[in-house]
Amino acid sequence: MGTQKSRIFKWMSWFVVIAAFFLIGFIIGWFARPPHTDHDAVSRSYLQEFLEEMQAENIRQYLRKFTRLPHLAGTEQNLRLAQQIRDEWLQFGLDSVEIVPYDVLLSYPNKTNPNYISIIDDRGNEVFNTSLSEPVPVGYENISNIVPPYNAFSAKGQPEGDLVYVNYGRTEDFFKLEREMGINCTGKIVIARYGKIFRGNKVKNAVLSGAKGIILFSDPADYCAPGVKVYPDGWNLPGGGAQRGNVLNLNGAGDPLTPGYPAKEYTYRYSIDEGVGLPKIPVHPIGYNDAVNLLKNMGGEIPPNNWKGDLNVSYRIGPGFKAEFNTQKVRMNIHTNNQVTRIYNVIGKIRGAVEPDRYIILGGHRDAWVFGGIDPVSGAAVVHESVRSAGKLMARGWRPRRTIIFASWDAEEFGLLGSTEWAEENAKLLQERGVAYINADSAIEGTYTLRIDCTPSLHTLVYDVTKQISSPEEEHEGISLYESWHKKDNWTGDRDAPRISKLGSGSDFEAYFIRLGIASGRARYTKNRKTEKYSSYPVYHSVYETFELVERFYDPTFRKLLAVARVRGGLIFKLADSQLLPLDCNEYALSLSKYAHSIFQLAQKHQADLFKYQVSFDSLFSAVDNFTAAAKDFHERLKHLDMTNSVEVRMANDQMMYLERAFVDPLGLPGRPFYRHIIFAPSSHNKYAGESFPGIYDAMFDIENAKDPISAWEEVKRQISIAAFTVHAAAMTLTPPA
Amino acid sequence: MGTQKSRIFKWMSWFVVIAAFFLIGFIIGWFARPPHTDHDAVSRSYLQEFLEEMQAENIRQYLRKFTRLPHLAGTEQNLRLAQQIRDEWLQFGLDSVEIVPYDVLLSYPNKTNPNYISIIDDRGNEVFNTSLSEPVPVGYENISNIVPPYNAFSAKGQPEGDLVYVNYGRTEDFFKLEREMGINCTGKIVIARYGKIFRGNKVKNAVLSGAKGIILFSDPADYCAPGVKVYPDGWNLPGGGAQRGNVLNLNGAGDPLTPGYPAKEYTYRYSIDEGVGLPKIPVHPIGYNDAVNLLKNMGGEIPPNNWKGDLNVSYRIGPGFKAEFNTQKVRMNIHTNNQVTRIYNVIGKIRGAVEPDRYIILGGHRDAWVFGGIDPVSGAAVVHESVRSAGKLMARGWRPRRTIIFASWDAEEFGLLGSTEWAEENAKLLQERGVAYINADSAIEGTYTLRIDCTPSLHTLVYDVTKQISSPEEEHEGISLYESWHKKDNWTGDRDAPRISKLGSGSDFEAYFIRLGIASGRARYTKNRKTEKYSSYPVYHSVYETFELVERFYDPTFRKLLAVARVRGGLIFKLADSQLLPLDCNEYALSLSKYAHSIFQLAQKHQADLFKYQVSFDSLFSAVDNFTAAAKDFHERLKHLDMTNSVEVRMANDQMMYLERAFVDPLGLPGRPFYRHIIFAPSSHNKYAGESFPGIYDAMFDIENAKDPISAWEEVKRQISIAAFTVHAAAMTLTPPA
Repeated sequence: MGTQKSRIFKWMSWFVVIAAFFLIGFIIGWFARPPHTDHDAVSRSYLQEFLEEMQAENIRQYLRKFTRLPHLAGTEQNLRLAQQIRDEWLQFGLDSVEIVPYDVLLSYPNKTNPNYISIIDDRGNEVFNTSLSEPVPVGYENISNIVPPYNAFSAKGQPEGDLVYVNYGRTEDFFKLEREMGINCTGKIVIARYGKIFRGNKVKNAVLSGAKGIILFSDPADYCAPGVKVYPDGWNLPGGGAQRGNVLNLNGAGDPLTPGYPAKEYTYRYSIDEGVGLPKIPVHPIGYNDAVNLLKNMGGEIPPNNWKGDLNVSYRIGPGFKAEFNTQKVRMNIHTNNQVTRIYNVIGKIRGAVEPDRYIILGGHRDAWVFGGIDPVSGAAVVHESVRSAGKLMARGWRPRRTIIFASWDAEEFGLLGSTEWAEENAKLLQERGVAYINADSAIEGTYTLRIDCTPSLHTLVYDVTKQISSPEEEHEGISLYESWHKKDNWTGDRDAPRISKLGSGSDFEAYFIRLGIASGRARYTKNRKTEKYSSYPVYHSVYETFELVERFYDPTFRKLLAVARVRGGLIFKLADSQLLPLDCNEYALSLSKYAHSIFQLAQKHQADLFKYQVSFDSLFSAVDNFTAAAKDFHERLKHLDMTNSVEVRMANDQMMYLERAFVDPLGLPGRPFYRHIIFAPSSHNKYAGESFPGIYDAMFDIENAKDPISAWEEVKRQISIAAFTVHAAAMTLTPPA
Repeated sequence: MGTQKSRIFKWMSWFVVIAAFFLIGFIIGWFARPPHTDHDAVSRSYLQEFLEEMQAENIRQYLRKFTRLPHLAGTEQNLRLAQQIRDEWLQFGLDSVEIVPYDVLLSYPNKTNPNYISIIDDRGNEVFNTSLSEPVPVGYENISNIVPPYNAFSAKGQPEGDLVYVNYGRTEDFFKLEREMGINCTGKIVIARYGKIFRGNKVKNAVLSGAKGIILFSDPADYCAPGVKVYPDGWNLPGGGAQRGNVLNLNGAGDPLTPGYPAKEYTYRYSIDEGVGLPKIPVHPIGYNDAVNLLKNMGGEIPPNNWKGDLNVSYRIGPGFKAEFNTQKVRMNIHTNNQVTRIYNVIGKIRGAVEPDRYIILGGHRDAWVFGGIDPVSGAAVVHESVRSAGKLMARGWRPRRTIIFASWDAEEFGLLGSTEWAEENAKLLQERGVAYINADSAIEGTYTLRIDCTPSLHTLVYDVTKQISSPEEEHEGISLYESWHKKDNWTGDRDAPRISKLGSGSDFEAYFIRLGIASGRARYTKNRKTEKYSSYPVYHSVYETFELVERFYDPTFRKLLAVARVRGGLIFKLADSQLLPLDCNEYALSLSKYAHSIFQLAQKHQADLFKYQVSFDSLFSAVDNFTAAAKDFHERLKHLDMTNSVEVRMANDQMMYLERAFVDPLGLPGRPFYRHIIFAPSSHNKYAGESFPGIYDAMFDIENAKDPISAWEEVKRQISIAAFTVHAAAMTLTPPA
């Protein structure tokens, strides 16, 4: 018995031991299965490597290399540059790089018959002619193919007439002119100074006023910073410099002859006279040396002070010249040709490891009016360095969760054509798969601080990324970019954080953001908006945008461009590699609330009308409240998401990805079928200015000018209803899917 | 040493044993983790249960229950029916059921001032009046709220004039009348027979012709089958019966006052005179007893034979009455009111177990003109039984992979309003998450065989499902529905399989398929299209659509309705529960190729013009080839998909789900912004007829009538280009995503 007991005991002991080991084995086996590695920790460390790999010196070299020759869209030189970029991106290690051509309408001066403006006497003799080109900067004297200043897509023609000075050529300027000053522009040639609004809007206003031509000039008040010398001794615009630029009113249509569709070999092309947005009158840009000669003898009234620039003339509005010169007229001589021309985008890809069907795009243009020292090569050089750094990371074994697409767009200067045609060709894919678009145009327009324009859902990511990047500012050695930015540009009033702006238009994100509803943003170094009042940067679109301009004046150490490279790159990296998309719906809610309050405030100047026509914003406020609650609940639920369930993660990410899409109305804004974002679009009166609730904004703008106030207010009500619906619909996309 | 050795040996032995058990434990642990069960086998067995659970007797009872009272949209009775359906769906076990209201424009006769048509003598006395209502069938004498025959949305008015007989009122009929017969309809009242095309198109043509009123009548040639008695002794239309129906030309807009947006409390409403698709002239429907009286004394020419119906009159075209009666005129007396009225959809859901954010919709309308014995209750009863069966399955532990949505739409008869408003409110969700929409209008319109209209990607699934269902036909006992269908309606010429048709419009799938691009289909029992030439079914939209009509004549055993229930249910089940979506892109390729060839053939009648205006279909054929290759490759890759990788499976499913979406052009078809499907849409000349490549089709139709052939052919070229682009874009969605 004893022996038996002890044997039983012994076997039981062994059984326990064996069972214990079995259990240990089982447990280890259970957990030894390929675990969900801490993806985000690995990703964070790769992000550090990615940012640190980028070097200021490389950006300097790329800027140098890409600005030696002019590379206007549609020219041989710009195709060569595309090929060079393709080859280098492939060397850097992208999975694929291809050149994607389109045949779009471009516009060039006639090489044998130059554009200029004359003052003619009563016998038709030219007593003054504007210059045919800008004085070429030192070192570039032997460069050919520098296109003289012109306004692309100007109508041809040689109109003669009296000048009328129209200030900036804004809607309000023409209102003042016609209603308060009693000037009729019909049959006149108007002269407007550059600045404040997109030049295409000036031209549109001139056409509406009945003018038969429009001259655009750069006034020192708008293109020279006080106390700064003109290039090459400083970064101000010389008197012989002039701003090139297209004067289309495309409203997002892309190629004027193929609106809505990619300009491929099989695509139907409208005839030129049916083309979208082409001005019907000649337009020509001049510098301030020439402008003085046109303005100095003008007659008519002296305008209010805010119509006066910094030239030594009285800025009389005309029409025509003062008594001694009243037999003189102005004649424009414009021979610019529109022609269908092949352009080339370069598209490079890194295939996503887990979700190859989710796209993060870093895109910026390559074409330049001349050398493109700032616009666009300061941006393109930065993209180039990001691609190189990403390639290095891939060589070390990294591959992002999602697909990254790098794009070098062509013909941005001719109406965002390359980026828009590609968006049109790939619209279905982008609509279903596009997570985010980061724009990479000019990386610097001033030396003061960072400037970010982006969709609200990217706010938090921008803050997160800029906290991981050190400030490039010498006086801020050792602190983060976020901190130096915060010190210099606080979001006063609204919140204690660095200020982030709305996206307007005027660069290649337009089709992605405003037409397709893909979360978008842009980053660059900028001037001090409180003290530096000139438009853009002084030498914008002139021959003086050279490598030396950047190296001597804007960023001698190239650390600011590096910081911008890291911001753009960091955004792309996090968007592509985070398991959960770093998009913040609560920030969208906050912004919507702010915008609803501002449009409501704007309406208060018509208080009597609001009452009379029963215009209420209640539905909009109620929709915003609804959205706010849905966003909050969504982010609460995210906290409890089972991150090991890859379908659940994908579903949550899809909800975040498609949030921006929910703000797109397929019917578009009134009369603008390709501007479809109900929350953000340019105002109809200035393409550069992003307005919130643009449909309501434009409808209210029209109140001032309405012949029939009832139907004008009905349109405001209709737009409020559309905005309320859209915000409700967006809220629905954030609720649990069933 | 020996002892030590043996001890070592002993420990080693124990170590081996322990290690072995550890290993066994490890291996068991490894494999004990929840395995990927054979989901599809389980699903197949549930499908069998789901189909077998459905019973003919239940469908009979639901049809009986839902047809006792009239339930016109916007009435108390139709709200009660909605509540009843909601309550029963909840009892059946759906996860949620809600009633979703909208306030839309409906149209009712004036209760105190009835609509009718008179013949008046030269002193204005009424010498003949049409009847004010249909004789009510036996058993329904005490039912109130039977709306008399009327055409919803008719303009009000009492036009007087001479009659012109316009045959079916088709575009070609008016062409013949105006061009060959030299008849001008301006200021006349036209009288058209029902049939061939949607009545709204007849009204539109009448308006274009200048007519000031239009009378629609049911001719026995079109609404009586030979040798069949009239109801209640048979299923033919009695002489006192008339066809109700709306006469809108909405082109998919939904509620005429809120096009593009859901008719909610916050939604902006246009005024009635700005409403979409409302006819500007009075319209009224009559039966053939009344028609004889209007037609018998008409003067003018005798028309060609194909303009003659089966009434004992000569079908003279007028204008006006023959000599003896030429002082008589016709006067229409129409007092129908348009009014914004609340309607109610019932929306029931089963939340998907794995992918709740993927939606499969089974939707059909509930509102009826009177009792709705066929239209729509034969369909609604079938949906009801599907819901009950799905509930039973859920009680046994089943839950579909994806979300199933059951919908009982309101106000279909007034222009598909309930389904369209819901599609508008949920457009963003549906666009991103809608997998398929199966329509459930009338389940029977004849007793001959199955009729399927669906998108090409559903062809294979339809065949698969019908093979699993037994034929309800007595002569085909024991064979599958697929086989009996195949015997009766082979897809002659094209292929040896049962014929499947294109979707047209005229029922609630329209917004889902043609506006949103969600794969759609419908199933019903139908007549023999080769021998039964009458339009629709004879008593369509009359008071004679009763329960008894179905029980006595159409489906006494209710086995045909059961078969339709199983087809619709089987489609929904497989779409919701298959791991890989059962969509076939190769079938789409085949269909596209067929359609390209037919539109090319259609163009051949203008051969000289094709040459003269350089119209080529090459780009379309090339796009179809491209699509065909992409579809083939896609299905090849599917074979090698790692089905254990749930993200890969989801990506492949997304490609299939979004294929239909790729055919949608956000710009819409010319002049029809809510018809956006480039492959399938109704012709502009007949809403009922689904045309392939409708943009090209309509442009070619216009050639015949073009004042300016150059621009008419330019439009054809533009449409070919859009079709080619769309097919290319769709092909891209099937290629590997990066």
